[in-house]
Amino acid sequence: MDERVREHAEVLVDWSARIEAGDDVVVSVAEDAHELGVAVAEALGERGANATMMYGSAELSRAYLKGVEAGTDGDVDADDFDSDPAVERAMFEAADAYLRVGGGRNTTAVADVDRPTRQAYAKARQGVREARMDTDWVSTVHPTRSLAQQAGMAYEEYQEFVYDAVLRDWESLADEMAEMKSVLDAGDEVRIVTERDGAPDTDVTMSIAGRTAVNSAASVAYDSHNLPSGEVFTAPYDTEGEVFFDVPMTIDATRVRNVHLAFEGGEVVDFSAESGEEAVADVLDTDDGARRLGELGIGMNRGIDRFTDSILFDEKMGDTVHLAVGRAYDACLPEGESGNDSAVHVDMISDVSERSRMEVDGEVVQRNGTFRWEDGFEAEN
Amino acid sequence: MDERVREHAEVLVDWSARIEAGDDVVVSVAEDAHELGVAVAEALGERGANATMMYGSAELSRAYLKGVEAGTDGDVDADDFDSDPAVERAMFEAADAYLRVGGGRNTTAVADVDRPTRQAYAKARQGVREARMDTDWVSTVHPTRSLAQQAGMAYEEYQEFVYDAVLRDWESLADEMAEMKSVLDAGDEVRIVTERDGAPDTDVTMSIAGRTAVNSAASVAYDSHNLPSGEVFTAPYDTEGEVFFDVPMTIDATRVRNVHLAFEGGEVVDFSAESGEEAVADVLDTDDGARRLGELGIGMNRGIDRFTDSILFDEKMGDTVHLAVGRAYDACLPEGESGNDSAVHVDMISDVSERSRMEVDGEVVQRNGTFRWEDGFEAEN
Repeated sequence: MDERVREHAEVLVDWSARIEAGDDVVVSVAEDAHELGVAVAEALGERGANATMMYGSAELSRAYLKGVEAGTDGDVDADDFDSDPAVERAMFEAADAYLRVGGGRNTTAVADVDRPTRQAYAKARQGVREARMDTDWVSTVHPTRSLAQQAGMAYEEYQEFVYDAVLRDWESLADEMAEMKSVLDAGDEVRIVTERDGAPDTDVTMSIAGRTAVNSAASVAYDSHNLPSGEVFTAPYDTEGEVFFDVPMTIDATRVRNVHLAFEGGEVVDFSAESGEEAVADVLDTDDGARRLGELGIGMNRGIDRFTDSILFDEKMGDTVHLAVGRAYDACLPEGESGNDSAVHVDMISDVSERSRMEVDGEVVQRNGTFRWEDGFEAEN
Repeated sequence: MDERVREHAEVLVDWSARIEAGDDVVVSVAEDAHELGVAVAEALGERGANATMMYGSAELSRAYLKGVEAGTDGDVDADDFDSDPAVERAMFEAADAYLRVGGGRNTTAVADVDRPTRQAYAKARQGVREARMDTDWVSTVHPTRSLAQQAGMAYEEYQEFVYDAVLRDWESLADEMAEMKSVLDAGDEVRIVTERDGAPDTDVTMSIAGRTAVNSAASVAYDSHNLPSGEVFTAPYDTEGEVFFDVPMTIDATRVRNVHLAFEGGEVVDFSAESGEEAVADVLDTDDGARRLGELGIGMNRGIDRFTDSILFDEKMGDTVHLAVGRAYDACLPEGESGNDSAVHVDMISDVSERSRMEVDGEVVQRNGTFRWEDGFEAEN
């Protein structure tokens, strides 16, 4: 076995999920993630944890949902699913941790399942999802040929890309991100400006007063549930202005490029996209909360050096900022207070490596991708 | 998809497990059983059942157990495992049915795990096993290259072999087996005689008075949990005489051939084997119950036309009889009575297609493989 697979498993089990002897751990292994599953199983055995292995197969999910469509003559609504699936709820309620090891055979394996079917299924499984998110859950991926293809990369090249992002000195990145977190925690307002062709294409302000930033250092000990991670995020509100997202992405199987959102009074009042505009419209029309921001995230993982059309990596990349419309994370809110609520949470990303600045309460914190505690930072332009 | 895969899934879901709308079904999918897993998922969706997919990977089990060995410096006992693994117990307690879809990459995948480690793990998981066996469980296999190799067959040839055994008219086989069951239920004593080179090599009698035979027709509706099945079995006692098992088999990764057992007063008092004798000795030395019979089974599935070194198929083959040392099945015993108890249940098989007879209370029921209700049966030799 490639030694990096074993190291990946150790980072996942020890740094990310903090597994200890006696922990009850549920592991979901995707179709082509067998090898990382083997390494994770070995690490769990060595730590003295209990391991329960699920098969996280998108092709099996698709088959199940196509079966439901066939069994209901294609007219599927939430009533066609059990609203309280007993087995998985019982399983996650008994679990201390959940490790999702992604890496299937085809990133578009469920493309031919009707959207209402998928939505009804997701709705019926909300209780299962909540029980799962009450565990110390962590999501990662094994580098597969299917993900390499989605990234437009050769297989070996993609393996290096993934391990550069995952096998980091997380302790030291967490220290650096703590600086960004302290700036956001102390601040009341964030302004982001980017320029293209000499004129601003993004100029947006948002309030973060009273909100707590999460130092997402790829560990449950930091309220962080992705491996890789490497972002600092908070839950903004009262957004005003214009944002341009130049990083290509896929929303619900639709390729989306160059999204523009205009905010007034905290809500999206206008939008456009160079391609995939209907997918953006669908997101914004989901519910009231889908037109408000749920997240401001600042990518700080410089092990990620390119966009691969995967949100797990793209939003953590150094020199990027992302905003999500929809649901806010509780970890960013004062105890007992609920933030923006929505059935969706869709991240969109801007490259800020050039002609950009981020201000907190009027002070520049990052210019052209460089933070003010880094060499080469220019306070004035 | 090969239409036979879909038919296999339908037999499993409808005939074997009797799945209905709303049932909570746990499916375990082995490494190379993905395709049958897809067909099962689709059938479950169509029936309106809930489906939870486990990954039944022997390679992950091996990795986990090797991890436990590494974490305990190799000196593993039952205390090194959680005696009540919460997740899987909760899962099976919530489940109505459990479908085990076998078919891994390597039938000897756990060969280098120490036997005490495997035994300690099995012991710690007894509660999970009991919860699983309290569901409507069914075990089947997807024809894989690894199983074809174990059977000594080409892949396509093995596929035909499996589907010939699985895709039967189960209703009509169940009717035929009901005849055999009624003979055993009414009888007090079974005698089996086989001859080789003009002299008996098997001549054994056993009591079956008060015991109930199971018509194992590959369906939970018949107390039968294997697909394929096709045997009638009961729980004999007070065994006397000699038995010769000429069908090759594998016991705990050891190839065993031509086992001979001598019984007195219900117990094995002498034994030999042409090869693998030490594996037979290990079985018989497990505990007191391992020297007594737990099962007499009569193979009646004529879709199985050869031995493949897999007990799932071999013991169901028409023209065979098998005896198991060790644990008896509760279904064969009077309500509330417990039969022979043991940690093991090891089946051994005799070919009775030639020079053989089975008598129940002195009347010949089967001669040279032909039952008395079949054409060509000879009451007298």
